[in-house]
Amino acid sequence: MNSCAVSRSEPRRSFLPAALLGALLAWVSLPAATQPLMPLPAEIQVSAGRLAITRDFKVALPGAADPRLTENLVLWLRRVEERTGLSFARQANATYVAGTATDASLVVECGAASATLPVLGEDESYQLEITPARALLRAPTTLGVLRGYATLLQLLQSDAQGWFLPAATIDDRPRFPWRGLMLDVCRHWQPLEVVKRNIDGMALVKLNVLHLHLTEDQGFRIESRKFPRLHELGSDGHYFTQDQMREIIAYAAARGIRVVPEFDIPGHATSWVTAYPELGSAPGPYVIERKWGVFDPVLDPTNEKVYELLDGFLGEMAALFPDAYIHIGGDENNGVHWTANAKIQAFIARHELKDNAGIHAYFNGRVHAMLAKYGKKMIGWDEILHPSLPAGSVVHSWRGPEGIAEATKLNFATVLSNGYYIDLNYPTTDHYLNDPVPPGTKLTPEQQQLVLGGEATMWAEWVTPETIDSRIWPRTAAIAERLWSPQNVRDVPDMYRRLAIVSQRLEETGLNHVRYLDPALRRLAGDNATAADLAALRTFVDFVEPVKHYQRGQQQPDANQFTPLTGLVDCARADSASGREFAAAVDRFLANPRDGAARAALDSILTGWRDQSAYLLAALPHLNPQLGESIPVLQAWAQAAAVGLEASAALAGTGTTAAPAVVDKIVKPHAAVELPIRAALTRLLSVRPHN
Amino acid sequence: MNSCAVSRSEPRRSFLPAALLGALLAWVSLPAATQPLMPLPAEIQVSAGRLAITRDFKVALPGAADPRLTENLVLWLRRVEERTGLSFARQANATYVAGTATDASLVVECGAASATLPVLGEDESYQLEITPARALLRAPTTLGVLRGYATLLQLLQSDAQGWFLPAATIDDRPRFPWRGLMLDVCRHWQPLEVVKRNIDGMALVKLNVLHLHLTEDQGFRIESRKFPRLHELGSDGHYFTQDQMREIIAYAAARGIRVVPEFDIPGHATSWVTAYPELGSAPGPYVIERKWGVFDPVLDPTNEKVYELLDGFLGEMAALFPDAYIHIGGDENNGVHWTANAKIQAFIARHELKDNAGIHAYFNGRVHAMLAKYGKKMIGWDEILHPSLPAGSVVHSWRGPEGIAEATKLNFATVLSNGYYIDLNYPTTDHYLNDPVPPGTKLTPEQQQLVLGGEATMWAEWVTPETIDSRIWPRTAAIAERLWSPQNVRDVPDMYRRLAIVSQRLEETGLNHVRYLDPALRRLAGDNATAADLAALRTFVDFVEPVKHYQRGQQQPDANQFTPLTGLVDCARADSASGREFAAAVDRFLANPRDGAARAALDSILTGWRDQSAYLLAALPHLNPQLGESIPVLQAWAQAAAVGLEASAALAGTGTTAAPAVVDKIVKPHAAVELPIRAALTRLLSVRPHN
Repeated sequence: MNSCAVSRSEPRRSFLPAALLGALLAWVSLPAATQPLMPLPAEIQVSAGRLAITRDFKVALPGAADPRLTENLVLWLRRVEERTGLSFARQANATYVAGTATDASLVVECGAASATLPVLGEDESYQLEITPARALLRAPTTLGVLRGYATLLQLLQSDAQGWFLPAATIDDRPRFPWRGLMLDVCRHWQPLEVVKRNIDGMALVKLNVLHLHLTEDQGFRIESRKFPRLHELGSDGHYFTQDQMREIIAYAAARGIRVVPEFDIPGHATSWVTAYPELGSAPGPYVIERKWGVFDPVLDPTNEKVYELLDGFLGEMAALFPDAYIHIGGDENNGVHWTANAKIQAFIARHELKDNAGIHAYFNGRVHAMLAKYGKKMIGWDEILHPSLPAGSVVHSWRGPEGIAEATKLNFATVLSNGYYIDLNYPTTDHYLNDPVPPGTKLTPEQQQLVLGGEATMWAEWVTPETIDSRIWPRTAAIAERLWSPQNVRDVPDMYRRLAIVSQRLEETGLNHVRYLDPALRRLAGDNATAADLAALRTFVDFVEPVKHYQRGQQQPDANQFTPLTGLVDCARADSASGREFAAAVDRFLANPRDGAARAALDSILTGWRDQSAYLLAALPHLNPQLGESIPVLQAWAQAAAVGLEASAALAGTGTTAAPAVVDKIVKPHAAVELPIRAALTRLLSVRPHN
Repeated sequence: MNSCAVSRSEPRRSFLPAALLGALLAWVSLPAATQPLMPLPAEIQVSAGRLAITRDFKVALPGAADPRLTENLVLWLRRVEERTGLSFARQANATYVAGTATDASLVVECGAASATLPVLGEDESYQLEITPARALLRAPTTLGVLRGYATLLQLLQSDAQGWFLPAATIDDRPRFPWRGLMLDVCRHWQPLEVVKRNIDGMALVKLNVLHLHLTEDQGFRIESRKFPRLHELGSDGHYFTQDQMREIIAYAAARGIRVVPEFDIPGHATSWVTAYPELGSAPGPYVIERKWGVFDPVLDPTNEKVYELLDGFLGEMAALFPDAYIHIGGDENNGVHWTANAKIQAFIARHELKDNAGIHAYFNGRVHAMLAKYGKKMIGWDEILHPSLPAGSVVHSWRGPEGIAEATKLNFATVLSNGYYIDLNYPTTDHYLNDPVPPGTKLTPEQQQLVLGGEATMWAEWVTPETIDSRIWPRTAAIAERLWSPQNVRDVPDMYRRLAIVSQRLEETGLNHVRYLDPALRRLAGDNATAADLAALRTFVDFVEPVKHYQRGQQQPDANQFTPLTGLVDCARADSASGREFAAAVDRFLANPRDGAARAALDSILTGWRDQSAYLLAALPHLNPQLGESIPVLQAWAQAAAVGLEASAALAGTGTTAAPAVVDKIVKPHAAVELPIRAALTRLLSVRPHN
């Protein structure tokens, strides 16, 4: 583990005694909750005044000179101008008006310039003091100033009196030093602009690690000048050139974000052996994998040519990627080809490696030595954990909640992704309450020190550049809060309130997670769709959710890398707000079935379902044929409306309620979408009317 | 002029005798009008059958081998899959299923591969024969096949029976060989992705020239390795690298589109002299211009160092840009600095150049000689026309309808942009009916030969990468039709019907002209806006139009390159459909004021205006402050509703109609937007009720 980094970040995490911290947070929770911030700061005190933002806004930047301070200031001012419509005055050919410490509306004081490239554990703290006279942003490092800019952008708000920053004092620092987003750019290629706009989104919510999953069975996505067959034969021409990767690294670094590359070995290696079949554990030849799942191709750990290639390749990559860490994957090696290969089994026996896990650990040891030679630290998925794993390696936990405990017990530093699999379409709450070090943790204080943070993982079987943002955002903002804000920031309704606002800010950075939908729906509906058809479809897709976990693969077993992802499920998004509204209406009604207003609110939702589903079923014949897949979903929606209305009437005194068992049938997924009503509808149907 | 190109393209334009052509077009007009095509083909005959498009779709590509045939086919198939949701079967690792001439659904026969780079006058013709059994696309060149793919993509449609291509025979070729879109990437920088997505849009409507306006007072947007001060000091860091430009040229060429660069000299040169003040006609120093207008800085035509720099620079650019043409601008040199410079005036006298126009012509002659040395032809704006302009130059007409007549009279080839200034926010009809060689033209047949075509011009004072597509599209599709389709394709209602469909296809290529609006409105409205607020705002901005011609500069005189373009006017778009609907409702009502249905339809529009304006005026206090600029517009809208309803009632027998003079007040622009109702409301108020 990177004890240096951990020890550097630790003091800030335990700076205040826990009891005092708790008291402070209780004290700040009310005013903080009124502010549109995500992640919430460690400490915030809001007072009554405001700093008006007008066209006379000026900035003073005394102190450390780091071009990133100005570049990010200019970006920040541009966003403020775009939101407010204000045109800040500029001197001739200047990018902003430089004020003095006395006349500036914003004074930025940076203690010392950070290194150009951010490093794990660097100080990201900052303090903000906003009064009606001015805002003072102070930070010991450039990174801290950047985090403060993100807070300022979120704090900006308006009312009938105009634009303003609320008077406040903020003292902020991250809870964990490793706060990441992993992008799989392999299963479906994600080009430069996707990566860049996601970096901008990350910066807004203070994430600081972009983990790029660059090699997979389905694609080899980085140019190797030493071994060009890798990207030439393994990518269909879709890969990052080294120039593009340098551009990404610089773009991220300018925003205080590290780039950690992953080269997944020895399994998930079909694209490697497509280029070099002689390095595989089975005879080959191989072709790029087009389907989804866990596949057999794996590098041959007994073949010295494998290590020659890896040594050359990793040396090349170590020079390209400046971060201290290289991720070697190491997951889901199913061992089929190793078990079938007598030479490999003989090698295991000869070297007393015991089993496939043993030779995998042997392989990792050799890779670790190469990385060490090139000055890099090794990180890999859960499966690299083994008694012989070299000290200083980091275990990236994905398989289950026990991963962190197991790794830290063996004194390895860890990063958590289990519970942050945003590709699986679970609700935001699930991720939000998933804490690397949860309240009441059984980890010892020493183990807790080893928890570096976490990463949201965006696996790309079911996303294209068009839809990927809608799978990452806004839910990842809640994960960012979990990793930045104090442990006891866990108010779910308040999180949802703030998430709706930060989602808008995220789109303003250039992300497409909301705006992708209307054109996708227009294409799906077709040229004969009326405005009313589109509005009804929009209500429908805002309601349904993509199926969870790995169910989509079961629903669409023939899908592969070429399948168009432009159907109903691709317009649906996780964590349906209308699903949550239904649940709230049910609970309010069940709290008092004789409350006429509560019943009217519930019935209004249910009659809406009835009418919308009927409308759409009637409209389908003149819409595009592929919408036919919606029919069973619409029928189930109509049935949900019918049994819901029956239950509401029964509980209010008329008629009978259907048996809750009907819910199973209603929520059965079709077309890879589901109605997000199982729990609430079951609750509604489970109450038997008194009569 | 490029007589070779003109003579090559001419035979296709006059292939059929005019009378026969007219008869043919009359015969095809009905079935053609039922097809969602833009531009309409030269000849089309639609019959009753259909070729069903299913997942078994296969393609056979016998004949000439040109990678562009396959690359564009794969792009085409991908778009079809995305629209239909069909997943075409593929053999292992193939990009499509290769059929045979007997089992393929689409057979593509290309006579001969075109050169990799398209050239002016190249054969773009193709023939399509679609039967229930298969589609046969035949073309003499690669370019023709690409144009045929664009037609196929537009022909694809669906009904309750599924996806299909209508049985049809199409024999198609362009009317003009130069069909362009000019992008000004200087006044507001437009990065690579803006250019690329516009190239995709151009390909869909068969435009074939991308004219990049690369240097301006406000920015120097191309890397010069010989004279790096130009882009380093003249661009704020926003310029195309030569690698990026090669990427653009290759991207365009792959789609059959030429790239013609413009380096605007000797005027519009502030960014040049910012880098090299010693080359200006006044002492300097200079700074990049930030405001809009015509400025004084101009190269000194008497300074040999100017020609040294131009010779080096144009040589470098001639090597970078493969097209035969280089555009030298030449417009709007106001002569102020030349007149004030005694040395320049003495030079004019000494060389008997007569006046500033004479020395401008002398300058052009020297530039022409340099271009000729580098194997390039010269094109420039109207102002280069002069008795001494070297033969073979092309005059790009922008100032008035007389430009083409004047240039062709002097035997110069011409390209028309007057009437195609899409930045000025005129309705589509104006551009559509603006013909380089209109019906009843007074041009002689020889002059007509010299008209190469036209270009839509997107000047960038008032656009950002966010809004630019909405200023170009969909109106430019109608210009594309004017330049491709036969002269007598002029049915305006049918154009609007097809334009709505092609607009959807254009968004599917990646353009943002529709989808940019909702996020822009959400940002404009702010975090307190409700769904109802946003819907009302959407109706409002769908109704109003940006002011026309150069009025925005008068409305927003303080605007400069840094002004945020995120206000009401940036959400409004030219050629409001609801404005056209109002005009139609007025005319239907005036045709028979006692027709109750016509009156009800008109009143429904007017009461909508009344209610929406009242709603928004009430909502404004909780929306973002900058929406305050809408108040006078909303008040005028309310007044329009009131006088319209009065007039409707009066004409139906009750009350009195306001005097038409009130319209002047109502339509007075505010916040750079206007209500598109002047003509129709005036008509409504001009009819005096009988009583």
